[in-house]
Amino acid sequence: MAEATLSGAIHPILENDYASEWMGIKVLALSDGHATIRMTLRQEMLNGFGMAHGGMIFAFADTAFALACNPVNPAPGETDSITVAAGVDINFLKPAYRGQVITAVADRRSSAGRSGLYDIQIFAADADAQPDPQNPGELIAEFRGRSRTIPKK
Amino acid sequence: MAEATLSGAIHPILENDYASEWMGIKVLALSDGHATIRMTLRQEMLNGFGMAHGGMIFAFADTAFALACNPVNPAPGETDSITVAAGVDINFLKPAYRGQVITAVADRRSSAGRSGLYDIQIFAADADAQPDPQNPGELIAEFRGRSRTIPKK
Amino acid sequence: MAEATLSGAIHPILENDYASEWMGIKVLALSDGHATIRMTLRQEMLNGFGMAHGGMIFAFADTAFALACNPVNPAPGETDSITVAAGVDINFLKPAYRGQVITAVADRRSSAGRSGLYDIQIFAADADAQPDPQNPGELIAEFRGRSRTIPKK
Amino acid sequence: MAEATLSGAIHPILENDYASEWMGIKVLALSDGHATIRMTLRQEMLNGFGMAHGGMIFAFADTAFALACNPVNPAPGETDSITVAAGVDINFLKPAYRGQVITAVADRRSSAGRSGLYDIQIFAADADAQPDPQNPGELIAEFRGRSRTIPKK
Repeated sequence: MAEATLSGAIHPILENDYASEWMGIKVLALSDGHATIRMTLRQEMLNGFGMAHGGMIFAFADTAFALACNPVNPAPGETDSITVAAGVDINFLKPAYRGQVITAVADRRSSAGRSGLYDIQIFAADADAQPDPQNPGELIAEFRGRSRTIPKK
Repeated sequence: MAEATLSGAIHPILENDYASEWMGIKVLALSDGHATIRMTLRQEMLNGFGMAHGGMIFAFADTAFALACNPVNPAPGETDSITVAAGVDINFLKPAYRGQVITAVADRRSSAGRSGLYDIQIFAADADAQPDPQNPGELIAEFRGRSRTIPKK
Repeated sequence: MAEATLSGAIHPILENDYASEWMGIKVLALSDGHATIRMTLRQEMLNGFGMAHGGMIFAFADTAFALACNPVNPAPGETDSITVAAGVDINFLKPAYRGQVITAVADRRSSAGRSGLYDIQIFAADADAQPDPQNPGELIAEFRGRSRTIPKK
Repeated sequence: MAEATLSGAIHPILENDYASEWMGIKVLALSDGHATIRMTLRQEMLNGFGMAHGGMIFAFADTAFALACNPVNPAPGETDSITVAAGVDINFLKPAYRGQVITAVADRRSSAGRSGLYDIQIFAADADAQPDPQNPGELIAEFRGRSRTIPKK
């Protein structure tokens, strides 16, 4: 799949996902249990220390998590349920800075019944390094997400 | 302390904290090891399910965490270090919706050397319920933050 | 309730709980969503650094968690399900040593449907300090448990 | 390395590690940042539900974590420090039962300064299935450990 701007044509959960749209997320790869996304760190994503706000790193990784959890093409029996984050353990390993390009790679680790466990790794690279999925830069955070599948309202 | 719009006059770490400014966070209370903040959930904070994006709940709580971790008036020996998030475990208990007012209450649980542990509870209430710190609404998430104090660059 | 040696007369889940029996756990208090327990750190609970093995601190806290999660007197509709640990985030704050008396205090933080969140604090005191529930000693670890209620096999 | 009963000859941190000795842990593989260990679930490791006590699964994984964190042959500058668990996030995916053989595989994910992050996967297999490191059975738990290197007392 070519680099695609985030939209409902890419994945049904991206329809009306205003937060991901605001972040300017691009989808690099998408398959069952997997997603790779990318965005550039802008000024509004910084904290008072001049580093990327942990919450923005989290929000970015959380979008990769949601994409990996929910099927791109829901099967007939799956259209009335959604999979959401029940909880997350995140470890911040290194800071990231304005203008850097960050990449999140989400993968399912296990799944049983309505519960799943996903690992999302977040990498940062300088913009002029033109990062690609094969070499997304330095590992800056490890996000482990716990999912729950619930009935759609 | 009266309800105050987020600014560097309130706390030094809020100077140039563009992410918190973008969120429209207000500071309700602030003291050593403690902070209470509030914001209203806007459209750009929603995910594709029409609920508050987990990343936005996290980013909001993370600001309360940073305020509780760092002294309002640093002592002479504290001006050359900052306290940042090393990691977080968050549990999402209930969804929150557009227009709701959410409140985060951060408290230090323990601190030893350069490490600390903080609990941040996040509550949601309907806007017309005029939530106050004494009754901030329903508990929607529990955030446990691990802090590290590091030299300022 | 007086200090009681762990047994099935105290709580149905303690019947045949060989691990808790091996640890020599005593139950100090027990009510819906709450448990306080105590044990003495023995040689078999130490790691190669001469400190309590983290796994033993965890196992001890996990028993308090199980006691707080499961009703002492199950209601008619509750006898065919059990509540187990789905996951835990634990932070080790201080070491504990052989001969110290450790106390775990478990409390429910929230509960919705089949999921619950419990906090267990673990304290250590020297044996001759004769710790009591009102003053169980120094906080050595914070355990946050995520529970799931499942059908009994 | 051939299957070896846990002892100080295998790794210095195992000297006087009474907890691991009590568990009957065997070391299958050991190298910088990595360890694979195995044990059989005995009656004293069960909870009141007849399943392996979560605390015993944790204690077992915690030993693999300690082995992966600490060098087998400390360099001259490393002999006066030890690496311990600062915290852990564990997810219990499936129950394990008496008589099953469980295997823990520990690997370093990242390391910076005095902090490290390690993933330990725990697998279970029936005893007559004669599990080997290449096929250790079903994944029953995921343990993510946060380490801190501290001065030796």
